[in-house]
Amino acid sequence: MPGMVDTHIHAPQYSYTGTAMDLPLLQWLNTYTFPVESRFKDLKFAHRVYTEVVKRTLKNGTTTACYFATIHTDASLLLGKIANDFGQRAFVGKVCMDRNKSDYKETTQECQKETCRFIAELLNKKYPLVKPVVTPRFAPSCTGDLLGQLGAIARKNNLHIQSHISENVDEVKLVKELFPESKSYTDVYHKYNLLTDKTVMAHGCHLTDEELTLFSETGASLSHCPNSNISLCSGLLNVRNVLKHKVKLGLGTDVAGGYSASMLDAVRRTLDTSKVLTIQNPKHQALTFDEVFRLATLGGSQALFLDDQTGNFEVGKDFDALRVNVAPPGGPIDLILCDKPKVGSGALYKGDDRNIVEVFVAGRKVVPFMEPAAE
Amino acid sequence: MPGMVDTHIHAPQYSYTGTAMDLPLLQWLNTYTFPVESRFKDLKFAHRVYTEVVKRTLKNGTTTACYFATIHTDASLLLGKIANDFGQRAFVGKVCMDRNKSDYKETTQECQKETCRFIAELLNKKYPLVKPVVTPRFAPSCTGDLLGQLGAIARKNNLHIQSHISENVDEVKLVKELFPESKSYTDVYHKYNLLTDKTVMAHGCHLTDEELTLFSETGASLSHCPNSNISLCSGLLNVRNVLKHKVKLGLGTDVAGGYSASMLDAVRRTLDTSKVLTIQNPKHQALTFDEVFRLATLGGSQALFLDDQTGNFEVGKDFDALRVNVAPPGGPIDLILCDKPKVGSGALYKGDDRNIVEVFVAGRKVVPFMEPAAE
Repeated sequence: MPGMVDTHIHAPQYSYTGTAMDLPLLQWLNTYTFPVESRFKDLKFAHRVYTEVVKRTLKNGTTTACYFATIHTDASLLLGKIANDFGQRAFVGKVCMDRNKSDYKETTQECQKETCRFIAELLNKKYPLVKPVVTPRFAPSCTGDLLGQLGAIARKNNLHIQSHISENVDEVKLVKELFPESKSYTDVYHKYNLLTDKTVMAHGCHLTDEELTLFSETGASLSHCPNSNISLCSGLLNVRNVLKHKVKLGLGTDVAGGYSASMLDAVRRTLDTSKVLTIQNPKHQALTFDEVFRLATLGGSQALFLDDQTGNFEVGKDFDALRVNVAPPGGPIDLILCDKPKVGSGALYKGDDRNIVEVFVAGRKVVPFMEPAAE
Repeated sequence: MPGMVDTHIHAPQYSYTGTAMDLPLLQWLNTYTFPVESRFKDLKFAHRVYTEVVKRTLKNGTTTACYFATIHTDASLLLGKIANDFGQRAFVGKVCMDRNKSDYKETTQECQKETCRFIAELLNKKYPLVKPVVTPRFAPSCTGDLLGQLGAIARKNNLHIQSHISENVDEVKLVKELFPESKSYTDVYHKYNLLTDKTVMAHGCHLTDEELTLFSETGASLSHCPNSNISLCSGLLNVRNVLKHKVKLGLGTDVAGGYSASMLDAVRRTLDTSKVLTIQNPKHQALTFDEVFRLATLGGSQALFLDDQTGNFEVGKDFDALRVNVAPPGGPIDLILCDKPKVGSGALYKGDDRNIVEVFVAGRKVVPFMEPAAE
C-alpha cells in the first residue's frame, strides 16, 4: 500500500504521549507541553527523543511526517538531520511564539531571526527529502507583528506553512479577544498571508462554512487529528462537510494531544468520529473505510502539496510504500474467515506495526532500518 | 495489575473481526453474522476459531471472558473445554434463538432441550473456572415462550444469564412491535424472569432512566461495549448516568461488532465515548482514567457476580493478574519523560499485548501458555 502521511505531529511531545490526557487544550499546554518542550534546549535530550520518534513513526508506516519541533533552532535542525539519516520524508518547523505566560517563548525579533537561520541552515544541508516549514505555533501565542513577518518569510522563500486553527471553543474565543479586528480565526491567518496552497492547519473543528470557503479559495489545507480532538475534548470535525467545501484534508496523529503515533490509529479514529456524527444525526453520511484510507495516503500528500510526488502508485511518482502482512502467524491478525472478506480493512482495523513488514521512501528501504553510525 | 474482565464477547465472530464494519446492527447480523455463525456446526472449524480466540484474549490480558458461542451445543461445549485447557476463567453460553428469517435458529423446544443438555454436560465436566450461562440471543430473535422457559431454567439452576438490550434505535422499535404488551425493552426481560443479580446485558445505549432503575432494583448489570457501539453506529452509552443509577457495569469488546479483542481498546473507547459526551455537553463529567481502569477490572467482576473472587488484590480473592512492562526496550512504549509521569496510564493508552508479559488466572500462570496436547 502507499506510505501513510502524518500531516501533524509534535516531535518533542512524543516523550510524554499517553501520560497527560486529563486537561483541555489551554491548560494542557501550560501544565504539560510548555515545560516539556522547554527541555529541548538540551541537544542530548532532543537527540534521544527525536531519534525515537522518527524510528517509531517509520516503523508505524509513516513515510512522510510534518513535524512541529520546539522554539530551539539547533534542536529543530537536529530533528531534520535525524529524519534525513533514517530516510523519512519530512517537513520540520522551528516553532515561533512571542506571546506566552511562561518563559517558553522568544522575542518577536528572535523568532524572525532564528526562523531565517533555521531555514537557511536546513536548506544548506541539501537533504533530498527534508524541508523547512514556517511554523507560528498558533494565533494565541503570536503577536500580529510576528504573524506578518512569518507570512513574509514564507512568501519570499516559497515555503510551506503550518499552524493550528479552531481546535477548541475557548481558544476560538481567545483569538476573538486578541485579534478583535479580524472577522474570524481564519481571517487572522489570511490577513498575515499565512493561508496559501502550501499551508496546512491542524484541527479546524469549529470552522464556519464561511471560513472553509476561505480555505478553499486560498488552497490551504486541514490536518484532521481525531485522536487529539477527542482526547482533549476539543471537538468533532465534520470531514464530510470539509470535503464538500473542496478543502484539501489529510490526517494527523497530533502526538501528544493524540496518544498514538500510529497513522492506523488516525484512520480508526477518523472513522469513529465520522460514525459518532452519524449517531448524532442519521442524515450525516459517515465516511467509508475506502475514503479514510485515501485521506491517510493521497489526502495527506495533497494537503502537503506533495501529490505530484507521493500518495499513490501513479507512474512518475516516488515509491513511498509499505509491504503489509495482513495475517502474520502468531501476530495480531489470526483469522480472516468472513464469507465476504475485506482483508485489507481487517489489517488496518486490527493491525499494528508488526503487520508493516517493510517501509520504502523514495524507493529506498527504510524499515527494517540500519542504525546510523554512533555520534 | 488485576486481570481484565471482558463481560461481552462473541467467540465465533472472532473469525471476521475488522472485516465487516459497514452496516448497522440488524443488516449486519443478517449479512455477516448469521452466515458465519452457522458454520460452527463444523466442530473442526469451531476448534480452530475457538482456540485462537481464547489464546488471543488471554495474551491480551483478559483473565475472565463472558462468551456467546453459537446455537450449536457441541461446539459451545468445545469452547468451554478450550477455555479450561488454556486456563481462562469463562462463562460460556449456547445461544438460543427460535425466531429468525434465515435457517440459523432452532425450534423453541430444541432451544430448551439443548440448553438443558448444554448446562448438564458443561457442569458435569467440573471445570473449576468455566461456567454455563443462559443465553437468549436478544428479544427480537426469541419468542416470549422461549424467554419464559430460559428464565425458568436459569432460576431453577441458579445460573448466570446474558443477552443484549437497547443497542440500536431500530432494534428498540422492533422490540416494541414484537412485544406490544411490555412497557419497555427492559420490561420484556423482566417479565420473563431474565433480570436477576446474575444477569449481564450488553449495550443499553438507549435505556431510559426508568429502565435503569429496574436494572438497579433487580441487581442486573450492563456490559458497555463502546467499540461496537461506535463501529455499528448504534449509540453512545452515558456511563456516568448508569453509575448514578447504581447499576453495576463492566466493559466488553463485543467482538465482532467491535473490531478489537483487546480490553485495552475497550478502556480507550470507553474514555473516548465519555469525552464525546462532554464535547456535546460540557456539563457532562467525563469518566477519568482511574474510573475506567476500575470498570475494566473490578467493574467487570461485579457485573459478572464474581467480585467476591476477582477484580482486585483484596486478601482472600483469587490471583487473577497481569504483569505489565510499561516500557519494554524497542516495544511500543519507548519514552516516558513527562515531569508528572502517569506511567500506568501511558502503558494502557499506548500499549498492546507486547506489554503484557505474564497472565495469571486463579494463581496459575497461563501466559506465556503451554500448548495443550494435540487432539
